[in-house]
Amino acid sequence: MVWALAIHGGAGAIVEALSDDHRNAVEQTLPRIADVGATMLRGGGSAIDVAEQLAVELEECELFNAGRGAVLSVRGTHELEASIMDGDSGRAGACCGLKTVRNPIRLARQVLERTDHVFVAAPGAEDLAKEWQLPCVPNDWFTTDRRRRQLDEFLAAEQDDRMHHATVGAVVCDAEGRVAAATSTGGMTGKLPGRIGDAPMIGAGTWADTRVAVSGTGLGERFIRAGTARMVSARVELLGEPLPVAAAAVLDSMPPESGGLIAVDTGGVVALPFTSQGMYRAWATGAGIVGHAIGPTIGGP
Amino acid sequence: MVWALAIHGGAGAIVEALSDDHRNAVEQTLPRIADVGATMLRGGGSAIDVAEQLAVELEECELFNAGRGAVLSVRGTHELEASIMDGDSGRAGACCGLKTVRNPIRLARQVLERTDHVFVAAPGAEDLAKEWQLPCVPNDWFTTDRRRRQLDEFLAAEQDDRMHHATVGAVVCDAEGRVAAATSTGGMTGKLPGRIGDAPMIGAGTWADTRVAVSGTGLGERFIRAGTARMVSARVELLGEPLPVAAAAVLDSMPPESGGLIAVDTGGVVALPFTSQGMYRAWATGAGIVGHAIGPTIGGP
Repeated sequence: MVWALAIHGGAGAIVEALSDDHRNAVEQTLPRIADVGATMLRGGGSAIDVAEQLAVELEECELFNAGRGAVLSVRGTHELEASIMDGDSGRAGACCGLKTVRNPIRLARQVLERTDHVFVAAPGAEDLAKEWQLPCVPNDWFTTDRRRRQLDEFLAAEQDDRMHHATVGAVVCDAEGRVAAATSTGGMTGKLPGRIGDAPMIGAGTWADTRVAVSGTGLGERFIRAGTARMVSARVELLGEPLPVAAAAVLDSMPPESGGLIAVDTGGVVALPFTSQGMYRAWATGAGIVGHAIGPTIGGP
Repeated sequence: MVWALAIHGGAGAIVEALSDDHRNAVEQTLPRIADVGATMLRGGGSAIDVAEQLAVELEECELFNAGRGAVLSVRGTHELEASIMDGDSGRAGACCGLKTVRNPIRLARQVLERTDHVFVAAPGAEDLAKEWQLPCVPNDWFTTDRRRRQLDEFLAAEQDDRMHHATVGAVVCDAEGRVAAATSTGGMTGKLPGRIGDAPMIGAGTWADTRVAVSGTGLGERFIRAGTARMVSARVELLGEPLPVAAAAVLDSMPPESGGLIAVDTGGVVALPFTSQGMYRAWATGAGIVGHAIGPTIGGP
């Protein structure tokens, strides 16, 4: 079997909004993180372990809207959410409303492993994180100057909707043909306290089964109302469509510029479609296909 | 166009567990509530208004696990959740973790109507309820002696898993061929604080679009991991299956005795499949088909 992975750091009208410094930072970071996953997979790592670790790496990077560097709610605080699904077992874990859990995806994984539940909200979810001794930080540890500025612009009604809905995510097919998906986010700038987006919703922003794994990013409410991630698999299962066809068809059924998704199937095929102007993304496979991009590309998966 | 509606009050291993008094109360209540919806639909009520009102009636009835009569979490408190989706507009509203909102489905409807969000968790969701002046009650207003006893049995490890995962729900096709779905629940007896089930998850326990409306009930985590409600519509859309075939196929793809669902399509066809021992349910259509049942039936929809 050929392993494969893809990661994303959000989709939106991002291309012209980028400073050269920011673009350079993103372009150095995406392949570096993808390589962490590739190394794990070459060493026999499982899809679920690699998906979790890739999401942790993206959460730890302040360039992206998850973990440190997450966007701020209308109250100037962070509420983080994440989900993970293991296609092989069909098990899933998700959490939302987190204020102090440093790596939301790690909590989602532990919900999957340690409970009979799938989805747990704070404060109950934070209690579990403490019980399980996951690293916690003060809420303002997640804050960066850039996100503070974006909230100020939002509150002054000057925000331009660029990348304020983004998430991070990873999809992985391991050398045994098992797939997994992970998604993590700070939500959207200026969101109402308690707003849950698509990232922690199994079937909306995240899905994995015995066929495909999917992680979405963009205007979360649209992903919820379309059941986006679940539908990619449904088309593969019910219509027999190749993954890239199914993934593009689901995005095309949504309103224009809703965002994008990354997907992989159990044969190691990767699809990275988006209907927004760009999507931060990188990919790697055991067949030697490696790359990263922000705007539209010709020739990438 | 022929209007149609169905309601459910939960699915599980319920038949032999019922006292005669309880069975009689359920058998009187289900058709009475269905008739509330039928009267609204004859008067030109919209699918979304009728679905909301039917869920309110079920929440207000202490026989069922939603609103008053909801089950208790492991801490002896209630955390209520609900969702509603309007097939015609594709809009949805959902809320979870509610402790004082008397009718969770009314808050879900207001999230749909008044915000750009779909899903809001408490305490933010409770703040919205207060801002919008929805009726609130003390948390123990929801408690009944029966639910307290069930929690005591659960904590003593004597619980038998009967009807402790139930929800209530409604699906409606109005005289203009629009469909809507609503689901509300107290969750599962002894749940961890913060546990979110399938009821408030669009695509898992609730779905409506321009083809069908679906409300599920049973072992919520299984509905989340199957994307149950979304998949019923996917099969109708992608395979052209009649609704009863699609609904049964999705349930059959899940583990045995996962629960049941109620569904209606825009032509007024009703499907009420379940793989548990029974499902509290009632149905009515403008073509004069009316009924209710708890266990398996021959001849109902």
